[in-house]
Amino acid sequence: MPPSDRIRDHAGQGATTVAAHRARRRLRADQARQLADLLRHQLLSGGFEDGTLPHETTLATDYRASRNTVRQALDLLRAEGLVERLPGVGTVVVAQKYPHGLDRLMGLAETLREHGTVTNEVRTMGPAPAPHPVAERLHVPPGTDVLYIERLRRLNGLPLSLDLTYIPLDIGTALLGADLENTDVFRLLESITGQGLGHAEITLEAVNADAHSAAVLEAPRGAAVLMLERLTHLADGRPVDLEFIRFRGDRITMSGLLHRSL
Amino acid sequence: MPPSDRIRDHAGQGATTVAAHRARRRLRADQARQLADLLRHQLLSGGFEDGTLPHETTLATDYRASRNTVRQALDLLRAEGLVERLPGVGTVVVAQKYPHGLDRLMGLAETLREHGTVTNEVRTMGPAPAPHPVAERLHVPPGTDVLYIERLRRLNGLPLSLDLTYIPLDIGTALLGADLENTDVFRLLESITGQGLGHAEITLEAVNADAHSAAVLEAPRGAAVLMLERLTHLADGRPVDLEFIRFRGDRITMSGLLHRSL
Repeated sequence: MPPSDRIRDHAGQGATTVAAHRARRRLRADQARQLADLLRHQLLSGGFEDGTLPHETTLATDYRASRNTVRQALDLLRAEGLVERLPGVGTVVVAQKYPHGLDRLMGLAETLREHGTVTNEVRTMGPAPAPHPVAERLHVPPGTDVLYIERLRRLNGLPLSLDLTYIPLDIGTALLGADLENTDVFRLLESITGQGLGHAEITLEAVNADAHSAAVLEAPRGAAVLMLERLTHLADGRPVDLEFIRFRGDRITMSGLLHRSL
Repeated sequence: MPPSDRIRDHAGQGATTVAAHRARRRLRADQARQLADLLRHQLLSGGFEDGTLPHETTLATDYRASRNTVRQALDLLRAEGLVERLPGVGTVVVAQKYPHGLDRLMGLAETLREHGTVTNEVRTMGPAPAPHPVAERLHVPPGTDVLYIERLRRLNGLPLSLDLTYIPLDIGTALLGADLENTDVFRLLESITGQGLGHAEITLEAVNADAHSAAVLEAPRGAAVLMLERLTHLADGRPVDLEFIRFRGDRITMSGLLHRSL
């Protein structure tokens, strides 16, 4: 038994009260998370039509929760930047997360077409010798020049992702004069090679943004980032596009369908 | 022109030096991120066989980067908890991220079978009235009791995810006596219903862990969490399992294959 527990045991009635208080606090935190998850789904799927959540007392009744639990749940959503609580107005939805498909290989502008205009700020672009792991994955000899592109991508002007891209130079050269500001690389690759893209291997992770990436994405330091690594192949199987993409966690969701049997 | 730039312009040579210094620092931060992304891929895919990264000077040569850039890249990986730098030893891989498939619907123990043993600490389990959004998605009347389960899932003893699960009670009741500590809910659902699972709609997001979730997952407050919402259906189409899963971002990657045409 740790010393602090021994002391509380000696304290008798006081110990029980402290323990009960802790248990209640833990229970309320669990219930608040549970409620926040349900509200989060509704607000991200546009379930609150006028962009305002029901009043705390209504939520408390609907979800059979205490007012304190409701308040704590709304605090969780506020901390994530999804809602704001305005005096005299209530709790309003302030963030919109945009859906990115996990079922089909698509460029960002294609994916978000219904949601607005994607523009790309090209931060760096030019040939650079392929480091070993890039060369290996793009099937070019190590040290061969590949095209390296770094873009900050925005939706309706708001920073959405920071993309690092490697493309074999025989294909990449044609990208140098292309309208990268307004066009997905996917679309350009298809037009340059005269064939469709085939498949991509993807990996998704959640990471905390380092200070510099956060600054570029105009997000707080340590903000959760959805990191997508994607190696895209042409229809004929050749790997042509290796990307490391950092999506702002508060602006994107990835959705898809999984099947039990393949 | 902002005032600070005007002042620096007047300062002549000094201004140029400051600007050049800033540009260099920004460039190095960009290059460090670029290098960190490549090393991250290698270390997560087991590319450093003895678990030790090459010496800084080797990395600098291999990646045509300065020693400072290499150090900054290693700092980024350390901040993510992926490596540690031990005096006299070098940079060692300390974190292992486990791969979770995005191609097939699988339970956690099934998915991670090669990587160790999954155990589940059941924190809460019991019938509770279904809130409206749960009822709607599980196709039961609102207010009907559903089985609510909250589990902390561990791989080889280490906390991996916190799962909130809702299951219709006609199926859920049979789960009450089952070995939830050691068995995936998916497997139990298939055995209870006598049919396979069909498909699931999933949504993935990156969020910062709230204080309470972080404490349960034994992660730092604000740690990046990969949040998976999943509605699983039986082979006959009936929705049977609504889950909200918080994976520790530093312990899981999701991998899959996307195709350009459906």
